[in-house]
Amino acid sequence: MHAKRLSGVLAPAITPFRQDLSVDPERYARHAKWLLANGCSGLAVFGTNSEANSLSVEERMSLLEALVASDVPVARLMPGTGCCALPDSVKLTSHAVKLGCAGVLMLPPFYYKGVPDDGLFRNFSEVIERVGDSRLRVYLYHIPPVAQVPISISLIERLLKRYPGTVVGIKDSSGDWGNTQALLDVFKGSTFDVFAGSESFLLQNMRSGGVGCISATANVNPGAIHHVFEHWKTLQADDLQARISATRATIQKYAMIGALKAIVAHYGDDPDWVTVRPPLMELGTDKTRTLVAELDRLGFTMPGLAQSAARV
Amino acid sequence: MHAKRLSGVLAPAITPFRQDLSVDPERYARHAKWLLANGCSGLAVFGTNSEANSLSVEERMSLLEALVASDVPVARLMPGTGCCALPDSVKLTSHAVKLGCAGVLMLPPFYYKGVPDDGLFRNFSEVIERVGDSRLRVYLYHIPPVAQVPISISLIERLLKRYPGTVVGIKDSSGDWGNTQALLDVFKGSTFDVFAGSESFLLQNMRSGGVGCISATANVNPGAIHHVFEHWKTLQADDLQARISATRATIQKYAMIGALKAIVAHYGDDPDWVTVRPPLMELGTDKTRTLVAELDRLGFTMPGLAQSAARV
Repeated sequence: MHAKRLSGVLAPAITPFRQDLSVDPERYARHAKWLLANGCSGLAVFGTNSEANSLSVEERMSLLEALVASDVPVARLMPGTGCCALPDSVKLTSHAVKLGCAGVLMLPPFYYKGVPDDGLFRNFSEVIERVGDSRLRVYLYHIPPVAQVPISISLIERLLKRYPGTVVGIKDSSGDWGNTQALLDVFKGSTFDVFAGSESFLLQNMRSGGVGCISATANVNPGAIHHVFEHWKTLQADDLQARISATRATIQKYAMIGALKAIVAHYGDDPDWVTVRPPLMELGTDKTRTLVAELDRLGFTMPGLAQSAARV
Repeated sequence: MHAKRLSGVLAPAITPFRQDLSVDPERYARHAKWLLANGCSGLAVFGTNSEANSLSVEERMSLLEALVASDVPVARLMPGTGCCALPDSVKLTSHAVKLGCAGVLMLPPFYYKGVPDDGLFRNFSEVIERVGDSRLRVYLYHIPPVAQVPISISLIERLLKRYPGTVVGIKDSSGDWGNTQALLDVFKGSTFDVFAGSESFLLQNMRSGGVGCISATANVNPGAIHHVFEHWKTLQADDLQARISATRATIQKYAMIGALKAIVAHYGDDPDWVTVRPPLMELGTDKTRTLVAELDRLGFTMPGLAQSAARV
């Protein structure tokens, strides 16, 4: 993995499925390139909003290889590799390191609830030891509303002490600014990078020492979010933040993943994008119409997306 | 799969790991045979207490094949095959059907929370359609305390209507007798089989029309639990139930999986059994000593287990 750390706006790139629910590597690479050309500094592929846990290990590896084969810069990729089963986490992490990814974003094993920090420490430790590669950079993925297995600050302290230079950051998707602030306070002055889990907290995160955000809605609004990242020290920062927060608030009234795919399908004029894998459901025609009308009123655009789809 | 339905006491067989955390097929087959010789009518392998979600898809398939190769009767097996990723569920279910298993016990996809019943219906439907084998018998696995994704009665009704003869039963591990009673009431007179998720509810379940239990502690106390199943119509039934409930209550004061493995290691004189995969932790020496002392006071035994281990 690369010495240069990722910062700025990362998208947990959504994963396209054909109507038969198979993965679509070509459409995937196209979306990845559009994101990188339109404000994303990196791609946290195989995140929650990528439906990563709805993919088999083999599908994840072949999709990552397809991105690399399509000349998506591997140094801008931070694939999700944390699974319930240790052998799966080891396999995916090892694969990402060998390809040269910038880092990996690691969920805790999320089937058992109420597990002790000792067990979570042992999980991350076994993955790191078994991968056994000094290029590995682990970003922890704290998303208790979904995984229901939190990553505590004391667990992070233990991991940093044992694996300095390997455990290098976190995505905080707790939805709780208090937790992000606590992380920033505790790890102030260290090289531990804190990404907010939503652009709603981007400006706050930058002002408090964070390095950016990894956000679902970066899939559709990367330019405006990147603009906040670029201009967070300026006088317009609060106004810019208010605008991306308004867009976010509009989208998150709907089931997020179905909504993101409906938006890409609509603004990209590429209807097959709407498909999700069960247990999720597509947003549906009526809700899509309402959502698009709301976004249009906000002046929302996805520049060049339709042309990018048409080029294929 | 077989026309004959399983009933009685099924164990979600615990999965042995070597000290390096690799799976141990020989020790696994030995435990399976001991369970079937000591009161279990079947084995719900790859359940929650089997650490199934801590195993890769390949490990699950190879362990199942190892059981079959060791002459464990395949008609007494109900492997867990429900995963977060549809391709994994299809692969495991198809594999189980082809081997001739009595049925499969299917978790809902458990990463996303708060998903609509439409999405869960579509998940089970896609698995059934893609496996496309009339021998398939699906038992639904309702375990909201762990999976955090419930299987509602209205979802079951939809599945039964669409897939009669394929969706044939449920394991109710809600821990809520009210839910089990509701299932028994709603599906009374049908061929939908209700297994209690713990022997604590075995007698109540049998008296209300259920078919048995699939219980963690059947891994260590199968004989006494089977005794309740055999004698549930007799006058001693309440006394027998009180005894297995007391044993259960003693064990479940501890973290269940570590405790089960510690018990098998102790009474089977086979120390390597204690190993669990992260994020779980072994029970540890002190707690094991206390637990064993409590069990000894209850007159607890595991007849023939040590000899079975020594034979190898």
